[in-house]
Amino acid sequence: MDYVEEDEQIIIRLDPGEQVLDSLETLRDDLDIENGFLTGIGAVDTVTLGHYDVDEQEYMEEKFTGQFEVTSFLGNIGPDKIHTHIQVATREFESLGGHCSGARVSGTFEVIITRGETPLTHQLDEQTGLDVFDI
Amino acid sequence: MDYVEEDEQIIIRLDPGEQVLDSLETLRDDLDIENGFLTGIGAVDTVTLGHYDVDEQEYMEEKFTGQFEVTSFLGNIGPDKIHTHIQVATREFESLGGHCSGARVSGTFEVIITRGETPLTHQLDEQTGLDVFDI
Amino acid sequence: MDYVEEDEQIIIRLDPGEQVLDSLETLRDDLDIENGFLTGIGAVDTVTLGHYDVDEQEYMEEKFTGQFEVTSFLGNIGPDKIHTHIQVATREFESLGGHCSGARVSGTFEVIITRGETPLTHQLDEQTGLDVFDI
Repeated sequence: MDYVEEDEQIIIRLDPGEQVLDSLETLRDDLDIENGFLTGIGAVDTVTLGHYDVDEQEYMEEKFTGQFEVTSFLGNIGPDKIHTHIQVATREFESLGGHCSGARVSGTFEVIITRGETPLTHQLDEQTGLDVFDI
Repeated sequence: MDYVEEDEQIIIRLDPGEQVLDSLETLRDDLDIENGFLTGIGAVDTVTLGHYDVDEQEYMEEKFTGQFEVTSFLGNIGPDKIHTHIQVATREFESLGGHCSGARVSGTFEVIITRGETPLTHQLDEQTGLDVFDI
Repeated sequence: MDYVEEDEQIIIRLDPGEQVLDSLETLRDDLDIENGFLTGIGAVDTVTLGHYDVDEQEYMEEKFTGQFEVTSFLGNIGPDKIHTHIQVATREFESLGGHCSGARVSGTFEVIITRGETPLTHQLDEQTGLDVFDI
């Protein structure tokens, strides 16, 4: 991982073999990011997609292995949670998507984080069982 | 809906049962947003997708009901129009997408609006029948 | 193409028949954009999707013709490279996605570029054969 920290945004390059979420967590801790939204594109060879069942209040997860272009990686960073969704494309340009529970970089992975001011902490919403923005 | 208004961006949490587009319209009117681009992720239990036929100059729409992760919600806000596209993932991680004609929150829905300066008004383009940026 | 240049962002409307990547290249050169990340939505009637094979170190490309809504167009702009991924939806709301090697506007196409400070130059990564952020 290499990055440039500017006044309002951080530009990140992740390298082959790196775990996207672990890297973002390291970066958040190193730079004390308490509020950021992110957009990213890249390529991964492993991606674990999640789908939340509101009724059962649990994530179902499935791990996919292959060569995937990441067409969208969107989400946000709070001091207590990094929340991202991911959309990938197969070699046949077909699409898979969901909550991002894990992704490993194959080619390169480019993320831009735009920082905000208000700490983006979370609170448990008992109705859904989700940790949601406490704003 | 809860939100935090910062100097340059607005961070929004929508709650179960809320209509995404109606909520954004309320917010736009309350905060006098004349220019904003947005990114969002979340989960919805109803989504109405649109596809514009340029030849026929009309939207075809279809309503989908289920449990969907929203992998990307992108668009922009002007004083006279909110224009968004949406990509959702099913329980099998399959993808559906199109123009967003409506979406109802199931789990949570997180949107970041980045404000610009120039009022983003629209004008009718007779060739396509679309209301496009008047810039 | 019409656009508005603000302090930190550029708002762009592309019109029917225009090539998205060529237009962004023209804009980059006209405005000396050395660092920008972009989000966009719109509609295209031709899109060339790419998928990079890291082992073979080559892009496979396929050109699709039809009426497509663009549900996400994400990427970044450096002085020596514009890198974008695209996700489109068919009339049946099915999804196709990948590296964007070309796209021609049908209805309208709306892009917001947020400028950064550090020139986003690229260097060849020999392991993957890709030109990656030199940051």
